[in-house]
Amino acid sequence: MNYHFSKKIHCAFDKAVEKVEDELKKQGFGIISRINIQEIFRKKLNTGFRKYIILGACNPQYAYEALQEEDKMGIFLPCNVVLQEHADDEIEISVINPVEVMNSTGNLNLKTFAEELKQSLKRVLEQV
Amino acid sequence: MNYHFSKKIHCAFDKAVEKVEDELKKQGFGIISRINIQEIFRKKLNTGFRKYIILGACNPQYAYEALQEEDKMGIFLPCNVVLQEHADDEIEISVINPVEVMNSTGNLNLKTFAEELKQSLKRVLEQV
Repeated sequence: MNYHFSKKIHCAFDKAVEKVEDELKKQGFGIISRINIQEIFRKKLNTGFRKYIILGACNPQYAYEALQEEDKMGIFLPCNVVLQEHADDEIEISVINPVEVMNSTGNLNLKTFAEELKQSLKRVLEQV
Repeated sequence: MNYHFSKKIHCAFDKAVEKVEDELKKQGFGIISRINIQEIFRKKLNTGFRKYIILGACNPQYAYEALQEEDKMGIFLPCNVVLQEHADDEIEISVINPVEVMNSTGNLNLKTFAEELKQSLKRVLEQV
């Protein structure tokens, strides 16, 4: 099983981030973290890197229910979505496969959440 | 294999967060995200929850090298550390087990990073 689902689109990077955020919101996710890897490497390592953003998406209701089931689930929160820029304005968008991740908890009660989350995240990918 | 390593201490919650952040810094991690789950549930679901913080820890050098090996590794960044308050000022601290997580990529070249990260995160847990 793959740990991510990915798709490539042709688009300006900032526009792609905006589109992904919009689609995440339509699927009930809030964006609770935005990590700019390019900027971190520039500041901390003084080195160049391609545009690379990690968006942390969280559906509060799912998160609440999942934490009732598994109190250390926060280890896997939020659901990450990665956008990276390849050559020629090709942007690759990758969403986590929550089924793969939640499998590692060994808690079968999380299976339904994970499947629903997976469908929502795949819909985001389809729509962008 | 467990997806986390955990430890309970008796301490005020904010003091525990401070101690964990200090120890993460000593091990070469920067704190690149702080997610306050209690606040998210209060604002978005209008419901109470115990104190629960997710710290996102990142060692830029490790992250840089890992991303050369596996360009979608950002799906698993940063390394999460969860602090949650149980009854009687008992604080539980959980760090992710990066070996378990990186196994799901199927990329054997990440094994050394994952082992080193695991040792660093376990040292954080020992020191708090």
